[in-house]
Amino acid sequence: MSSQSSSVGERARQLFETSQSLVCEELSRVDGAAQFGMDRWERAGGGGGLTAILPQGALFEKAGVNTSTVWGTLDDEALRKLGGGQEREFYATGISIVLHPWSPMVPTMHANFRYLTRGADAWFGGGSDLTPYYPRREDVVGFHQEWKKTCDRHDPAFYPRFKAWCDEYFYIPHRGESRGVGGIFFDNLRGDLEKTFAFVTDCCRNVLAPYLPIVQRRRAEPHGERERQFQLHRRGRYVEFNLVYDRGTSFGLATGGRAESILMSLPPLARWAYAYEPQAGSPEAQAMAFYQPQDWLEST
Amino acid sequence: MSSQSSSVGERARQLFETSQSLVCEELSRVDGAAQFGMDRWERAGGGGGLTAILPQGALFEKAGVNTSTVWGTLDDEALRKLGGGQEREFYATGISIVLHPWSPMVPTMHANFRYLTRGADAWFGGGSDLTPYYPRREDVVGFHQEWKKTCDRHDPAFYPRFKAWCDEYFYIPHRGESRGVGGIFFDNLRGDLEKTFAFVTDCCRNVLAPYLPIVQRRRAEPHGERERQFQLHRRGRYVEFNLVYDRGTSFGLATGGRAESILMSLPPLARWAYAYEPQAGSPEAQAMAFYQPQDWLEST
Repeated sequence: MSSQSSSVGERARQLFETSQSLVCEELSRVDGAAQFGMDRWERAGGGGGLTAILPQGALFEKAGVNTSTVWGTLDDEALRKLGGGQEREFYATGISIVLHPWSPMVPTMHANFRYLTRGADAWFGGGSDLTPYYPRREDVVGFHQEWKKTCDRHDPAFYPRFKAWCDEYFYIPHRGESRGVGGIFFDNLRGDLEKTFAFVTDCCRNVLAPYLPIVQRRRAEPHGERERQFQLHRRGRYVEFNLVYDRGTSFGLATGGRAESILMSLPPLARWAYAYEPQAGSPEAQAMAFYQPQDWLEST
Repeated sequence: MSSQSSSVGERARQLFETSQSLVCEELSRVDGAAQFGMDRWERAGGGGGLTAILPQGALFEKAGVNTSTVWGTLDDEALRKLGGGQEREFYATGISIVLHPWSPMVPTMHANFRYLTRGADAWFGGGSDLTPYYPRREDVVGFHQEWKKTCDRHDPAFYPRFKAWCDEYFYIPHRGESRGVGGIFFDNLRGDLEKTFAFVTDCCRNVLAPYLPIVQRRRAEPHGERERQFQLHRRGRYVEFNLVYDRGTSFGLATGGRAESILMSLPPLARWAYAYEPQAGSPEAQAMAFYQPQDWLEST
């Protein structure tokens, strides 16, 4: 292991790997039909990871849970792409969860937590967000409320700050839309690393709690070809966000990470229809109103 | 019109607009079932374009031919993303053609030609490349031979230089593969703008000649679900290239271009299966050998 890894880095790695195994167990149980296949991989420049994929289950069309711990020296290209000064030595450990259900009535869920160092600098980042296709207000409010609870156990300033950050991060400027309905997002959390580590630990332990009640409420809802087509259309936006704007994807590809593990976040199937516009008053038009940042907890 | 536009800029715009109308006419005829719908759009910062889309034809699942002529002043964000110095005034006129056939036996074709200025600097860029799913050597050789003919009419150094540039440009580093089998690509052609304009004019007039014979040979070939799935998988690579690496896409999105026109290049449907590997010896495995840069005209 690199000299870059502090004891926080090692404990973060352990947290992420333990969380991966617990999350996979719970997701298999919820899916009810399929198991995760595990791929261990090594990175030529240092480190590696474990990619867990559940393909074509009963609930999930693709579920991915990835951990990786990589370190090394950034080359000129990576330095240029990533910015953030001239320091080349890095260490990064993290967990990513991306859940793409078959049913358009069940939202896609994403979570990611990570610990990074560049030279002597060290910070945490992470968050979780929801991408519903046929959004219901109660689902969105419930998701935000659960994350607010986790945040509030550590700092009352966290939820408002990380909720706003999430809205900003998952905005797709070229579409004038958000990827979904947000959640929480934070990055560059420096300073009291022990406090942040306790928060990230809590996030990891409760990462599925805001999502699973929505799955249980929606998974049996009927749907057909029309709903599938709208889901595939919105998944196109998901691809656009991840490939054009997502910093984790850029970081991974720029530092020679394993492409299949980084891009496991992409939906199993997506479509692009030219200049698609939902009909006024349709459920699809109503969904579009959810993809603008707004305060989900204002009335609660 | 901006003072940025020289007379070359104006003639380039006319060339691209005339070519668009001729190309659309020919493609409708070849498709045999569908017509192009035309969308004229304006860009808030200056200029606009005309997007022609043939959706769901007999041959084409989506065919797009876009022209745009835009000008203005780059903001800080665009300047940072685009690089190339501190000059903010720009003018850009171009044509893009992206053809996604239904049949996996018929290749996807792309062409783009453009004229740009930044302050007093002016240059042409462009090219055309082929993305077959079940490639045949005779198709690939024919495509390259036709483009070599067009190049050779202007400069014998063009084809070898632009062929190599195309291989470099359309390489997907994170996959270790090319998007397709290449063709020609050039950028930053400064100097004798009249000579380059004559070359680009010839390219535009003959842009479909390297492609249509392949369409005619392959369009009646039988195919089924297996071939469709491989096509959707390779289209995923097409999306990855366009959103992560393509400079035209980055330029368009960074300068506030019309998203639907820029992203008309994306395939109508694409899939991502985790860690897909074609079976050894299968037609799909044979296809993979084509997606590595190589000299297609060596034996001719």
